[in-house]
Amino acid sequence: MTSIRLAIVGLGKIARDQHLGAIEATSGIDLVAVASRNAKLDGVACFSDIEDLLASGIAIDAVSLCTPPQGRFSQAKAALYAGKHVMLEKPPGATLSEVYALEALAKSKGLSLFSTWHSRAAAAVEPARALLGQRKIRSLSVEWKEDVRHWHPGQAWIWEPGGLGVFDPGINALSIVTRIMPETFHLVASQLTFPANRAAPIAASLSFETASGIPVGAEFDWRQTGPQTWDIRVETEEGSVVLTHGGSRLFVDGEPRMVEEDKEYSNLYRDFVSLVAKGASDTDFSPLVHVADAFMLGRRIQTEAFED
Amino acid sequence: MTSIRLAIVGLGKIARDQHLGAIEATSGIDLVAVASRNAKLDGVACFSDIEDLLASGIAIDAVSLCTPPQGRFSQAKAALYAGKHVMLEKPPGATLSEVYALEALAKSKGLSLFSTWHSRAAAAVEPARALLGQRKIRSLSVEWKEDVRHWHPGQAWIWEPGGLGVFDPGINALSIVTRIMPETFHLVASQLTFPANRAAPIAASLSFETASGIPVGAEFDWRQTGPQTWDIRVETEEGSVVLTHGGSRLFVDGEPRMVEEDKEYSNLYRDFVSLVAKGASDTDFSPLVHVADAFMLGRRIQTEAFED
Repeated sequence: MTSIRLAIVGLGKIARDQHLGAIEATSGIDLVAVASRNAKLDGVACFSDIEDLLASGIAIDAVSLCTPPQGRFSQAKAALYAGKHVMLEKPPGATLSEVYALEALAKSKGLSLFSTWHSRAAAAVEPARALLGQRKIRSLSVEWKEDVRHWHPGQAWIWEPGGLGVFDPGINALSIVTRIMPETFHLVASQLTFPANRAAPIAASLSFETASGIPVGAEFDWRQTGPQTWDIRVETEEGSVVLTHGGSRLFVDGEPRMVEEDKEYSNLYRDFVSLVAKGASDTDFSPLVHVADAFMLGRRIQTEAFED
Repeated sequence: MTSIRLAIVGLGKIARDQHLGAIEATSGIDLVAVASRNAKLDGVACFSDIEDLLASGIAIDAVSLCTPPQGRFSQAKAALYAGKHVMLEKPPGATLSEVYALEALAKSKGLSLFSTWHSRAAAAVEPARALLGQRKIRSLSVEWKEDVRHWHPGQAWIWEPGGLGVFDPGINALSIVTRIMPETFHLVASQLTFPANRAAPIAASLSFETASGIPVGAEFDWRQTGPQTWDIRVETEEGSVVLTHGGSRLFVDGEPRMVEEDKEYSNLYRDFVSLVAKGASDTDFSPLVHVADAFMLGRRIQTEAFED
C-alpha cells in the first residue's frame, strides 16, 4: 500500500514539539506539505493557509489540523469537501454541534475522521483499562495541576471563549477517564474559577457519578508552580490503581508496573494510518461533552486577574 | 390495544397547566398515578416520590417526568430499570452525558424514551418546515423575550446551575429552529448576561452558522415587560417566513396563513402513544447541545442583581 500523503495545518508549538517527529517515526504516512500563516518548513511545500493549500492542487490524501480549536471547523470542512481524510488535535472543536457536523460530513463522503486524544494514547492507559475491567471500583479521583505560564506562555486564544482555559489540559484527563472506566458517568456538580480579566476558567472542581453510583471527582488547576501533578487515582475493592505523569506511569496496589515507553503521538499517527486503510473513523467526543456539561452546569467563582 | 397506564412525577405548574388536560384529551393513555412531594390529585393513586411509586407495585406502563431537570436523571433511570417507558419534559436533563446515558439505557432495555419539545409541537412548525424545504434561505433570526417574573415566579431552581436561566424558554426556540431548518448549524459566538446574584443567565445573544454559511441569530431576554415576543423570522430569496406566538402562528410573505388550532401537549401525548406502540424512541437532544455550546463558548457579562 502506498503511504498517506499528509499536510499539517498550523505549525505552532504542538506541531513542532510532537507531530513532526511522530510522523517521521511512523510508517505508512509522509509529510508533504504545511499550511501556516507565519512559519515554513524545509523540504516540504509551504502554504499560508488551508485554502491556498487545497487550491494549489498539490497531491495530498489527508490533513492533520494543529491549529487552535476556534477556527478548526471551517478548515476541517474545507478538507473534507476536497476529499481529504482529517485528523483533529484535541479539543476537536470549539462546539459540540460543529464536531457532530464534521462526523456526519465525513461519513457522507466516505472519508476518515480521527478525533485524537493524545493522553488516551499514553502508555499506562490500556493496561489500566484492562485491569479495571476485572476489579470492583469504589471511586476515582483526578488531580491535574500545572503551571499555565510554563505550558502556554502568551497563548491568548486559550483564554478566549472556545479556548477552554484549564479544560485544555483537563480534557486530557477526561480523555483517559472516559477510556479506563467500564461505565459512563455524568456530571452532578461543577465549580469554575475565572480570573477577573479572562473569559476562560483557571481552575475547575468537578463531581461526576457513574450510572451505578460510583463517585468520580476531578480537580483541575492552572496555578501550580513547582512539581506538576497529572494523576488519576482509582480505589477498588482489590486495592488501588494509580496513573501518574499524564497516564504514562502505572502503580497497582502501590507497586510500580512496567509499561511500554511512552509514545503518544506516534500511536496516534499509527492509528490514523490504520483508520484510513480500513475506511473507518474514530470520533469519540465524550471528553468534550463532559467539558460542555461542566460549563453548562458550572457555578462560577471570580478570582484575581491573571497576567502572563 | 389497551391504553398506556401512566404516572406523572412532579405535579407542579407545568403538569397542572398542560399535562393533565392533554392526557385527558388523548386516547390510548390514562393517568393512574401521581408522585409529588407536596401535591395530591383526586381519583388517582398518590405517592410522595418515584421510589415509593415504583415500590408500591401499582400497575403502570410509563412515567411522564414533569420535575425540574436537575433531579430528572435518577428518576428516569429508576423508571427504566423498573421496565417503564419514559417521557421527559424539556429540557431533558441537566447535562448531555446523562441524557445520552438514558438514551443508551432505554435502548438496551427495549423501552421507549421520548425527549419532548413542546414548542416543536406547535401548530406553525411543520407547515414552516415544509415551506422552508422548498425555499432558498438567506438568514434566520430568533427574538424570544419574556417577563421571567410573570412566567417563573419564585422558581429558585431555574436560577441554579442546571436550571438554565433564560435558556429555559430559549431552548423552546432552539427546538423549533432545529426542526424547521433544512441543515444543521453550529454556534460561532455567544454572549451571556448574568445577574450579579444568580448562577444562570438572564439574557443571551447567540450567533450560529449553518454548514453552508447561512447566519442564524438568537436574542433571548427575560426582562421584557408589556407585550411578550416569541418570534422566528426567516428571510428567503422568495420572501419571508415568520412564526410568532411561540410557533403557533405563521406569516408567509407578510400574509397570515391559517394553521391548525394549537395543541402542543396533546400532540406530545399522541406521539408518545405512537412511539410506545411502535417500540420506538425519539431522542433528539440537539436543542440541549446548542445550549451546552452556548455556555462553553459564552462570553459572560455581569448585570445588576435580580430579585423576584
